[in-house]
Amino acid sequence: MKLHFRNIVCITAALGFTITANAQEKRGRARDFGVYTGILKTGTNNAITDVAGVTVGQKTVIKGDSVRTGVTAIIPHQGNVFQDKVPAAVYVGNGFGKSMGLSQIKELGNIETPIVLTNTLNAPLVANAVLDYVLALPGNENVKSVNAMVGETNDGGLNDIRGRHVKAEDVLEALKSAKSGTVKEGNVGAGTGTEALGFKGGIGTASRVLPVSKGGYTVGVLVQSNFGGVLSINGAPVGRELNNFYMMDKTKIYKADGSCMIIIATDAPLSDRNLERLAKRSYIAFGNVGAFSSNGSGDYAVAFSTYPKNRIPYNASSMVRTIDDLNNDDMSPLFMAVWEATEEALLNSLFMAEDMKGKGGRTVKALPIKETLNILKKYNALNQNKLPLAIEK
Amino acid sequence: MKLHFRNIVCITAALGFTITANAQEKRGRARDFGVYTGILKTGTNNAITDVAGVTVGQKTVIKGDSVRTGVTAIIPHQGNVFQDKVPAAVYVGNGFGKSMGLSQIKELGNIETPIVLTNTLNAPLVANAVLDYVLALPGNENVKSVNAMVGETNDGGLNDIRGRHVKAEDVLEALKSAKSGTVKEGNVGAGTGTEALGFKGGIGTASRVLPVSKGGYTVGVLVQSNFGGVLSINGAPVGRELNNFYMMDKTKIYKADGSCMIIIATDAPLSDRNLERLAKRSYIAFGNVGAFSSNGSGDYAVAFSTYPKNRIPYNASSMVRTIDDLNNDDMSPLFMAVWEATEEALLNSLFMAEDMKGKGGRTVKALPIKETLNILKKYNALNQNKLPLAIEK
Amino acid sequence: MKLHFRNIVCITAALGFTITANAQEKRGRARDFGVYTGILKTGTNNAITDVAGVTVGQKTVIKGDSVRTGVTAIIPHQGNVFQDKVPAAVYVGNGFGKSMGLSQIKELGNIETPIVLTNTLNAPLVANAVLDYVLALPGNENVKSVNAMVGETNDGGLNDIRGRHVKAEDVLEALKSAKSGTVKEGNVGAGTGTEALGFKGGIGTASRVLPVSKGGYTVGVLVQSNFGGVLSINGAPVGRELNNFYMMDKTKIYKADGSCMIIIATDAPLSDRNLERLAKRSYIAFGNVGAFSSNGSGDYAVAFSTYPKNRIPYNASSMVRTIDDLNNDDMSPLFMAVWEATEEALLNSLFMAEDMKGKGGRTVKALPIKETLNILKKYNALNQNKLPLAIEK
Amino acid sequence: MKLHFRNIVCITAALGFTITANAQEKRGRARDFGVYTGILKTGTNNAITDVAGVTVGQKTVIKGDSVRTGVTAIIPHQGNVFQDKVPAAVYVGNGFGKSMGLSQIKELGNIETPIVLTNTLNAPLVANAVLDYVLALPGNENVKSVNAMVGETNDGGLNDIRGRHVKAEDVLEALKSAKSGTVKEGNVGAGTGTEALGFKGGIGTASRVLPVSKGGYTVGVLVQSNFGGVLSINGAPVGRELNNFYMMDKTKIYKADGSCMIIIATDAPLSDRNLERLAKRSYIAFGNVGAFSSNGSGDYAVAFSTYPKNRIPYNASSMVRTIDDLNNDDMSPLFMAVWEATEEALLNSLFMAEDMKGKGGRTVKALPIKETLNILKKYNALNQNKLPLAIEK
Repeated sequence: MKLHFRNIVCITAALGFTITANAQEKRGRARDFGVYTGILKTGTNNAITDVAGVTVGQKTVIKGDSVRTGVTAIIPHQGNVFQDKVPAAVYVGNGFGKSMGLSQIKELGNIETPIVLTNTLNAPLVANAVLDYVLALPGNENVKSVNAMVGETNDGGLNDIRGRHVKAEDVLEALKSAKSGTVKEGNVGAGTGTEALGFKGGIGTASRVLPVSKGGYTVGVLVQSNFGGVLSINGAPVGRELNNFYMMDKTKIYKADGSCMIIIATDAPLSDRNLERLAKRSYIAFGNVGAFSSNGSGDYAVAFSTYPKNRIPYNASSMVRTIDDLNNDDMSPLFMAVWEATEEALLNSLFMAEDMKGKGGRTVKALPIKETLNILKKYNALNQNKLPLAIEK
Repeated sequence: MKLHFRNIVCITAALGFTITANAQEKRGRARDFGVYTGILKTGTNNAITDVAGVTVGQKTVIKGDSVRTGVTAIIPHQGNVFQDKVPAAVYVGNGFGKSMGLSQIKELGNIETPIVLTNTLNAPLVANAVLDYVLALPGNENVKSVNAMVGETNDGGLNDIRGRHVKAEDVLEALKSAKSGTVKEGNVGAGTGTEALGFKGGIGTASRVLPVSKGGYTVGVLVQSNFGGVLSINGAPVGRELNNFYMMDKTKIYKADGSCMIIIATDAPLSDRNLERLAKRSYIAFGNVGAFSSNGSGDYAVAFSTYPKNRIPYNASSMVRTIDDLNNDDMSPLFMAVWEATEEALLNSLFMAEDMKGKGGRTVKALPIKETLNILKKYNALNQNKLPLAIEK
Repeated sequence: MKLHFRNIVCITAALGFTITANAQEKRGRARDFGVYTGILKTGTNNAITDVAGVTVGQKTVIKGDSVRTGVTAIIPHQGNVFQDKVPAAVYVGNGFGKSMGLSQIKELGNIETPIVLTNTLNAPLVANAVLDYVLALPGNENVKSVNAMVGETNDGGLNDIRGRHVKAEDVLEALKSAKSGTVKEGNVGAGTGTEALGFKGGIGTASRVLPVSKGGYTVGVLVQSNFGGVLSINGAPVGRELNNFYMMDKTKIYKADGSCMIIIATDAPLSDRNLERLAKRSYIAFGNVGAFSSNGSGDYAVAFSTYPKNRIPYNASSMVRTIDDLNNDDMSPLFMAVWEATEEALLNSLFMAEDMKGKGGRTVKALPIKETLNILKKYNALNQNKLPLAIEK
Repeated sequence: MKLHFRNIVCITAALGFTITANAQEKRGRARDFGVYTGILKTGTNNAITDVAGVTVGQKTVIKGDSVRTGVTAIIPHQGNVFQDKVPAAVYVGNGFGKSMGLSQIKELGNIETPIVLTNTLNAPLVANAVLDYVLALPGNENVKSVNAMVGETNDGGLNDIRGRHVKAEDVLEALKSAKSGTVKEGNVGAGTGTEALGFKGGIGTASRVLPVSKGGYTVGVLVQSNFGGVLSINGAPVGRELNNFYMMDKTKIYKADGSCMIIIATDAPLSDRNLERLAKRSYIAFGNVGAFSSNGSGDYAVAFSTYPKNRIPYNASSMVRTIDDLNNDDMSPLFMAVWEATEEALLNSLFMAEDMKGKGGRTVKALPIKETLNILKKYNALNQNKLPLAIEK
C-alpha cells in the first residue's frame, strides 16, 4: 500500500503558501484504501503509462497566493509523434469547453502532437508552446501545419486564471520531463487547482488489462477532474453522507460546473471509429462516481492507439498502408475496461488530491479520507472484489 | 406499496404457455421495496405520463411457444401530433440498432408521430403501421410525407423474431389504448421478450419533478431494457453477488448485447439542441446500473418537449413563431432529473419483469426479489434517501 | 452515341397510360449530346456498375392513372452481403428524409444489405422486403438482426404515394434482376415518378476512373434525382434561359423540395471515415447543377468500398483483420471523381427522363433536348473538354 | 463600377517589397466586370457588413521578404458580444484545420467573441489576443471563461508561417479598426498570403437580400480563400482555359490544398440548428467555383444571427427567454442566398487579389483580368443576369 503523507508532498509543491488543515491525514490511491472498482485486473502501475510507450510529464505552477495551475502532458509514443502519428478520436460529452485540435483529429483520424492539459484561459498559449515544441523537433524543419491537441478545465476557483500564468517554458518542461512508470496524481500539473464533486480534484489515472482470451490489451486512462454531482464511491453515497452535493441546499455554494478531460490510451489495434466508440464509454463512468455532466462542464474524451503497425507516417512511402483492425464484435471488453478505468482514475484524483488554498484565500478541502472510509464501511464498499473477477483466459 | 403477484399477471397474459418457476414471488417497483435512487422527488405516478398530456399504449404479443414480443407507444400530446409537432432530439449512444426516423428528427428538430417501440426485425412493419395511423388521422388527408419514429431492441432470445409477429393491428391497438396515469412495466408491450443485465428485462418508467426554484419542470422516462453488464442496484453489486454478469466465466453464456431504447418527455421549454443534451445524459445512467453500452447494444435516447407554445404547426400561419427557450445555464437540474429517472426506469423494468419462457423452451429468470433485497441490505442500499434531498424551493 | 426513342421506351413501360407530348424527341445521356463535365475519364459504361462486382436491379411500378413509382437496388458484391459486409458510410446533406439503416452504418462502418431506393411512404414496406430477402439467403438461417439500408425520395407529385404501391415482390424482382453493365436511367425504378430542377427527374448514373498514378481506382455514382434549384448544365444557365427555376415568379408553382439519394461505389481501399468524406463531396456537385439543398430536400449520400480484402465477415475467424487503407493524403483525386460523377449522374437523370403523366392527370415535362442544346451552344458548353484533361499516368 | 488600380493599393500595402508584374492591370470586384452570379439581389455594399451591426476590421502584416499574413476580424454587433452573445453554428466541410472554439459554439449554440481569421500556426497566439481583448472589455472584469472563435488557413506558400508573425497588437488593431460599410478584399488581413484555384486568393465578401415576401432578410458572407480545384467563373471553365487546374499535368505544381474559412451573418431570426443548416449550404458553392474540398483543405463555415431579440445574455434575468424562430419551411430562400453569396465572395477574393511575391522569392499571380474576361465572353458568361431574377415581392 503506497500512502503519501500530505505534508511531504506539500513541501515539494509548496512555493510560498502554507498548508494548515489536517496536514497529517495520509493520502493514497483508492485501491490503497481497499476501494476496488470493476472486475478487470489493472496494469502494473494502474496508470495510463501501463500502455507501452506512453509517458506523462507534468509541471505544477504554484506562485504566491493566487497562482494554482499547471500542465499535464501525455505523449503517445517515444518517436516523433508528428512524423509518426497515432490513430485517435475524440468524444465530446459536453462541449462547453475550449479544447483545441478536435476537428482535425476527427477528420483525419489521428493525433500528431502530445496531448497537453492546462487551465481554460491558458489553452491558446499552451497550444502555441506545443507548436514551439513540435516545430523544433529534429525532422520537422519544413513542417508548416501542426494540429496541437490541448485540453483544459477551469481552475478559476483557486487560480488567478485571467493571468494565464502557464508559460511556454512550463509546457516544454512538462514535455521534457515526461516518463513512463508511476504518474503523480492529485494537486499536480493541470490538476493543481481543480475541484470535483465538492472536494479538491486533480489528476488521476488507472488502467485495465483484458484477459488473454479477449485480446490481452491494455487500456489506460488519465483524467483532469473538475466537475460536480453527488459523489458516489464504489456504490456508497459519500456525497450525501457528507452533506456535500449539487442542489443540496440553497445556502451552500456548490460548484456543479467545471469540466473533465479524459485521455485514453490503448495498445489494441483500433480504427479511429472504434477509438471514438471507446472514448464515448468513459462518459458512462460519470454515473458511477455520481456526476451527470452539468451544463457548464466541458467534458471531452480523447482516445488513441499505440499499436505500432497502425501509425500514420507524415510522409508515406506508398499510397496504401496495411494495418490491423480489431473487429467491432470484439470491442465490448475494451468498452468495459475504459469504463472501469475512468471510474477509478476519477476516484484516484479525489483520493490523492489534498486541501488547496488559493486565490482570495479560498480553500478547497480534500476528500476526508477517514470519514470517507467510515462511510464506505457502512455501505460495505471496502475490500470487495479484490481479485479480478473476470475470466482470465 | 403496489405489489403484483406474478401468477395474477401471468394469467392475464398467458396465451397457451405455463409459468412454472417460483410463481409466488411478489413483484413491485424498485421504490416499493425501498430502493430510492437519486435526490429529486418523483412525479405522481413516477412515470413518463407524469408529463402532462403524454400517454402510453401497449400491446403484448404472446402466441404459442415462441412468440414473445409486442409494441409500446408513447404519444407526446393528445392532439394531432403530425399537425402540431413537438420539439425533439435524438442521442445515439451506440448506433448498432435499427431505429427509424432519426435523421429527420435531427434535421428539423421535431417529432411528428407517436414514438413506437417493438422488436428489431419488426421495425419496418411497425413503421408502416404508424404511417397507416397518421395518414388516417382527420386533417391528414393530403399528407404525403410522414417521418415515423420507431425504436427497437432485439428480443430474439425468447421470441421468434424472424417471424415478425407484430402486425399492423397490434400497433393500432397499442396506439388506441394509450392513456395517462400508471404504465404497465416489465413483460409488457415491446418489453415482453427482452433481457437486461442477466435477468428478464422489459418496460420500465420513472419521473422526476424539479424544485420550483429550478423551474418546477417534470421529466419522465420510459425504457425498453435489453442489454448486459454487471448489475448494480442503488450502489450494491447485485450482479457480482448473484454471480451473473458479463465476462464472469467462460462456461456461462451471458448476453452482453441487446440494446436499450430510452424515451424522455419533459414539459420544460427546451430547444431541440437542449433536448439533445438532455437525451445524452440518460446514457450516463447506464453506469449507475452497471452497464457500459456493449458493442452489440443499440442504445438510443429520444427526448421531446410538450411545452404547448413551442409546438410546430404543419401549416404555419406566419413565417416566424415566438417561442420560449430555457437558458443553457438552467439545464443542469434537468440533466440530473433525466439521469436519475433513467436509472430508476431501468431498475423498474427489472423489478417488474417476471420469468419468461419462450422460443426453444428457453426461460429467462426474473431478478430474484428476495435474494436481491438481501444483497441490498448487505450493502445498506435499502430505505436510504427516502425523502427528496434536493432543495425544494 | 446511344440514343433512345422515347416511344420505344414507353411502350415497354406503358401500363395503361398514353404518352402524348412530343413523343418523337430523342433522349440520350448527357455525353451523347456533347455534354462533357469534369476532367477525369469515365469507366466503360459510365455507370456505378463500372466498379467491379456492383450490380443494379430495378422494378418500375406503373399502374393505371396514378401509380408512378418503383424500386432501384444496388448490390455491392455478388456474394452474400450480410455474411461479407462492405465498409460503408453515410453523409446526410439535409436530413429531411426517411432513409433507414443510417445509424448502424455509421456506428459499425459497414453495410450488410443491398441498398434499395423507393418512394418516401414505401420505405418501411421496402425495408421489410429487404429483410425477407436477406433472411432467406442461404447461410442466413440463424440471423436475427439485419440492418436494411433503404433510401427514398418523394414522388408524390406524380404518384399516389399514400397508396404505398411498391410491394415485397417488386423489391425481390428488382434484387433478382440486378446485373452489371449498363443501367437504365430516367423514368425507371425509384426514379419513375421523381422531378428535378423543374423537369422530370429520375435515375442517373456515371463513373470516373483515376489516372494510374493516382491509384487507378474507379468511382461510380447512382442518383435518384428529385429536387429543385436553378438548373445549370456544364456551366450554362439552362433553368434561367427556360424560365423554369426556383423563386422565378409567384404565379408558377415550382417544386423546390423533393430530395436526392446518391449512392457511391468505389474499389479503392477506404476506411469508413474516408468513405464518409467521399460521400460528403457529392454534396458539392449540387452547386454544379444549380441546386442548393432546399429545406424540404432529403439529401443523403451512401458510399461503400468493394475492396475484397477489407470486407467484414459476419463470423470472423480471428479478432483482428488485416486490411488495406488508402492514405488521407491520397484522397483528393477520389474526391474529385465523386464530385464529377455525381454532377454527370444528375445530368443523366434529366437527359434520360421523359415526360410523365401521373396522378390527377398532372404531367411533368422532360428536359427539352433541342432547346437545351441550343442554350448549351449559346454558352459554348457543348463538345468542350471531350478528352480527359487530367494526367493519365 | 469601382475599380482599383493595383499600384495604388500596393503603395499603401507595400512595406519593403516591390511589385513587378503587370502592375497596371485594374482590379475590381466580379460584378464590376459584369460577372453576375445568382438570381437574388445584393445588399448595399454587397458585403457581410450589409447585415446591420456587423463590422469588419483587418490588419495586413507584411514585413521584409517573407512575412505575408494578417488578421481579419468580424464583429457580430456593436455591444459587448460576450455579455450579449449571438446564436451561432459551425459547419465543418473538411476538418483538416485548426479553427478554435468550435465545440462550445456547437454545444451552446452561440458565439461570445468576434470571429478572427489568421494563418494556421498563428491561431493560438491570435486566440490569446482575443482573450486579451474580451477580458479587458468593460463589464467583463470577473469573466473567467471565454470561448475565442479563431479561424485560419495556411499561407505558408508565401508567408514565413513558422515565424508566427501576427502579434497580439495586430489582433487588437484589427478589432479596434472594425467598421461597417465596404470591406477591403484580396490581399488584405488574413488573406494577405493565401492562394486559391491556382491564383492569388484572399479575402472576399458578398451579400444577398431576400424578397420581402420571403422575409426580406439579408445574408452576408466573408471568405478567406485558400484552396484548389478547376476554376469556374459564372459557368465558364476559366481554369481549364488558362491551363491552370488541379491534376492538369505532372510537371506543374498545383496547390490543391489550403483551406477556406466562410463567415456568414444574417439578420433572420434563426435557431442555432437552422444556422448550422445555413452554414452547410456554403459548402455547395464550392462546386460553382470549381472546388471539391480536397483532403488538405480545412473548410469551415461559421454562421450567426444578429436578430436582437434572440441574443443570449451572459447573466440572464430569468430562466426562460422568449425568442423568435423562423420556420424550417421558410429556410430555402436563405439557403439560396448563402449559396449565391458564398460563390460571389469567393470570386471577389480572386478578382480583387493581386500578384504577391513572398517567402523564398516565390510569386503567386493574380487572376489575369483581361484574359479571364475574354474567356467569360467566349462562354457568354458576362453581363448575364444583371437584374435580380427572383420575385421581388
